[in-house]
Amino acid sequence: MDHKQVQVTLIQLDNYGPWTGTIGADREHVLQSLQADLYSAIERRFAEREGLVFFNRFDEMLAVSNGITKTQHEEIQRSLRNEFPVTISMGIGVGENPFEAQRNASRLLQSIGSAQSERRSGVIASDRTLDIDESYVQIAHFDIDDITETHTDRSSAYETSLHVMKLYAELMQLFTKQNALLFFVGGDNFIGVANGVKLEEIESLLASYRSKQVRLKCGIGIAHSARKAAELATSNLDRIRNSNGEKPALTTTML
Amino acid sequence: MDHKQVQVTLIQLDNYGPWTGTIGADREHVLQSLQADLYSAIERRFAEREGLVFFNRFDEMLAVSNGITKTQHEEIQRSLRNEFPVTISMGIGVGENPFEAQRNASRLLQSIGSAQSERRSGVIASDRTLDIDESYVQIAHFDIDDITETHTDRSSAYETSLHVMKLYAELMQLFTKQNALLFFVGGDNFIGVANGVKLEEIESLLASYRSKQVRLKCGIGIAHSARKAAELATSNLDRIRNSNGEKPALTTTML
Amino acid sequence: MDHKQVQVTLIQLDNYGPWTGTIGADREHVLQSLQADLYSAIERRFAEREGLVFFNRFDEMLAVSNGITKTQHEEIQRSLRNEFPVTISMGIGVGENPFEAQRNASRLLQSIGSAQSERRSGVIASDRTLDIDESYVQIAHFDIDDITETHTDRSSAYETSLHVMKLYAELMQLFTKQNALLFFVGGDNFIGVANGVKLEEIESLLASYRSKQVRLKCGIGIAHSARKAAELATSNLDRIRNSNGEKPALTTTML
Amino acid sequence: MDHKQVQVTLIQLDNYGPWTGTIGADREHVLQSLQADLYSAIERRFAEREGLVFFNRFDEMLAVSNGITKTQHEEIQRSLRNEFPVTISMGIGVGENPFEAQRNASRLLQSIGSAQSERRSGVIASDRTLDIDESYVQIAHFDIDDITETHTDRSSAYETSLHVMKLYAELMQLFTKQNALLFFVGGDNFIGVANGVKLEEIESLLASYRSKQVRLKCGIGIAHSARKAAELATSNLDRIRNSNGEKPALTTTML
Repeated sequence: MDHKQVQVTLIQLDNYGPWTGTIGADREHVLQSLQADLYSAIERRFAEREGLVFFNRFDEMLAVSNGITKTQHEEIQRSLRNEFPVTISMGIGVGENPFEAQRNASRLLQSIGSAQSERRSGVIASDRTLDIDESYVQIAHFDIDDITETHTDRSSAYETSLHVMKLYAELMQLFTKQNALLFFVGGDNFIGVANGVKLEEIESLLASYRSKQVRLKCGIGIAHSARKAAELATSNLDRIRNSNGEKPALTTTML
Repeated sequence: MDHKQVQVTLIQLDNYGPWTGTIGADREHVLQSLQADLYSAIERRFAEREGLVFFNRFDEMLAVSNGITKTQHEEIQRSLRNEFPVTISMGIGVGENPFEAQRNASRLLQSIGSAQSERRSGVIASDRTLDIDESYVQIAHFDIDDITETHTDRSSAYETSLHVMKLYAELMQLFTKQNALLFFVGGDNFIGVANGVKLEEIESLLASYRSKQVRLKCGIGIAHSARKAAELATSNLDRIRNSNGEKPALTTTML
Repeated sequence: MDHKQVQVTLIQLDNYGPWTGTIGADREHVLQSLQADLYSAIERRFAEREGLVFFNRFDEMLAVSNGITKTQHEEIQRSLRNEFPVTISMGIGVGENPFEAQRNASRLLQSIGSAQSERRSGVIASDRTLDIDESYVQIAHFDIDDITETHTDRSSAYETSLHVMKLYAELMQLFTKQNALLFFVGGDNFIGVANGVKLEEIESLLASYRSKQVRLKCGIGIAHSARKAAELATSNLDRIRNSNGEKPALTTTML
Repeated sequence: MDHKQVQVTLIQLDNYGPWTGTIGADREHVLQSLQADLYSAIERRFAEREGLVFFNRFDEMLAVSNGITKTQHEEIQRSLRNEFPVTISMGIGVGENPFEAQRNASRLLQSIGSAQSERRSGVIASDRTLDIDESYVQIAHFDIDDITETHTDRSSAYETSLHVMKLYAELMQLFTKQNALLFFVGGDNFIGVANGVKLEEIESLLASYRSKQVRLKCGIGIAHSARKAAELATSNLDRIRNSNGEKPALTTTML
């Protein structure tokens, strides 16, 4: 799949900052529920179309959207408009690697108007989309070995979170250098969108953490769609989990 | 309010890791929606009772729950049981400061059983709860000045996230030293639960970041309940936002 | 509780008909989900305050809202505004009986503006509300005996529904004559809001249906709040269900 | 489309009656929210696949599911299992007309086990499904003329509901005689699934009600999928609504 590309959608809440100011100061709990509801609804719609969305920072989400057309993006946008009090705009970017794809998505969306413009509402910025057959994505699903035994059941909840979030910031940085993206997806799980990142690179990353007493494991999946690649990656991670250390810390499947 | 204490609830999904393994490998999108739905529902229930929940790592959430009784925790737990396919257990901790409170919550819950035990389901671990009148909480609501102009409308979405997540990991670490907790709440917003942290400390933190070209601003609120303290903090932050730099980067209200 | 009154809230979607026209003709599935989401959210909010909402016709819902203040109604209204793309208006009526209470609620709301007015949005019409101690409500929870054996597992689904809906229209009519309200609540269940309706009346209703080969049973609960009265009524109905016909078809509890 | 058939799915909550008994008597508000949440989620999933679901009695829903395969039904079932505390079973029926299709769906499901069996959980009963090209459905969307002016803004809310529910029971009965199905969908709206019912029959129905001072209007759509047929029907109804009585009370479009 050497010459295949990846498609990333940047999903941005329109004029969200100014809007939050209009609903009064007793709003944090409202925003937390609204952001979670929106993310859940957006995830479901992209997953129905074989994509996968990461909550990222909630006011901006990132989706791997291989094979999802502009018209399908419009369907998603329209259905959310009738369900929520805020609207979304989207930029659809295509690139040789995930970092480039999200940068293109960002530029396309920025060219249409500011995230805080009152006039920009419900737009989709796209110069082209990928057919599913010409798309590919490599998903790397990581977790931390034995975190329940070493942290959750021993340390305080906040100390565990501090450990996980430090690791997150480090891994984000490392992935950027490979033109890849990394997302925290809950618990002790991270998902990398890592087209073109070689197995040796990931093995070397795992090794460098082992030397710092952080034992990561990783399942990798490669497929045309994000949902399928994630399924393969998770399946490989499950196989490692169930092997009680007899299997290597890294396995891959390509569809 | 010198001698007042704070109450923190640790909310843990029961046997969540093993459960996810039972629903097949094509599950990441399912878990993302489920985690968001659960968080939204839990936030609404605590907010109805004047508390505030942080998503933290989604499989473990942390709530400031001043004044919420054990019986009210049981009501919340019961209502969620009839709405979701997974159950939650909770530890309710009381402490002189937020860090101690969450550590006590963690210990109480750990003493009852592992987060991955099949037998632990729907328990509440608590040795005591605080009346609202004997509770207090200091909430510090931070955001990054002009992030839309300096990042969102300029850099790529992922680079903005990397910037925010690095800052998050740093602030978490800094707050821990003050026996305080810090949570990312979306966008460029962080909320600190910071009983006893002096204004000078926060001013000094803002100054140290200004010298690194990161301009933070902060509104602080102090009240008996988490929801009220957050309202005051947000109200102060809004006032700074609307003052176009004429107001100081830090304001406080005590109820 | 002879002289106690009941409070009923009429909840109306603002300008709903015209709004639906703006979202295009491919909308029925959107409206079905939106109406259900709104009802679920409204039910949760009233139930948190010891009320009970009936979906009625979805664009107009009716709640027994004893003890829920105008301020609490405003809280409910405000929180929904930040969650949904449509707003609600409410009329709060007090009466000697449920029929009168809903008529007063209707008149108060009508006096403020048409349900299809573009200008009426998010209003609450109320001349007074009842303290919980001066409120009372009698809830009668009916179901059809052995409907699974006689219909669900034998007839077609639609024929069962036709049977239930005919019964619903008849019971609504009969209850109106008693200044009481009757609502279908799903399955083969009906809930009557029936302050002042005597046990003999209900026993006579059950007897008249028995003679037509429709075996109904009924649990009754009387309490200050709607949620408590419903709990007592359901508890009594459960007792009849579990008694295998040895208990009478009607039992009552007064708190 | 003379010889085309229609596919109807009966969606039944598994062992729902007994399950409700396990969650205590303070449950009516819980069930109301759960039923609405389930319906909303099921509607979204069928609509994504061009179907349309009617809430019917909530514990049993009916969907027009032309073109939706058994595998797609399984996907819907699986995704709901990970979102809700109750499971669903489904019967997929094909017939020359909608009544026959739902009767076949009912029989297939009944043959597998009782709706109240503890052992029947998450099954799908189907002997065949229809390709979208060999399917057809005629949807008739009715509403009551000027109900806002004649009822909503004049009578009490409950009296309006009584009027609508009586009409519903009557129309259900009339449709059954035509081997068609009729569903209340909220407000003053009814949707008929009426393959093969001739325009003259519907015109005659409208005329008979006009003579009783009930002015109905109706838009009809005919298409392969339920969602498309509903869109056409609603579009025709909108055209009548916007014509201020100049257009006839009945229009049809066939795709």
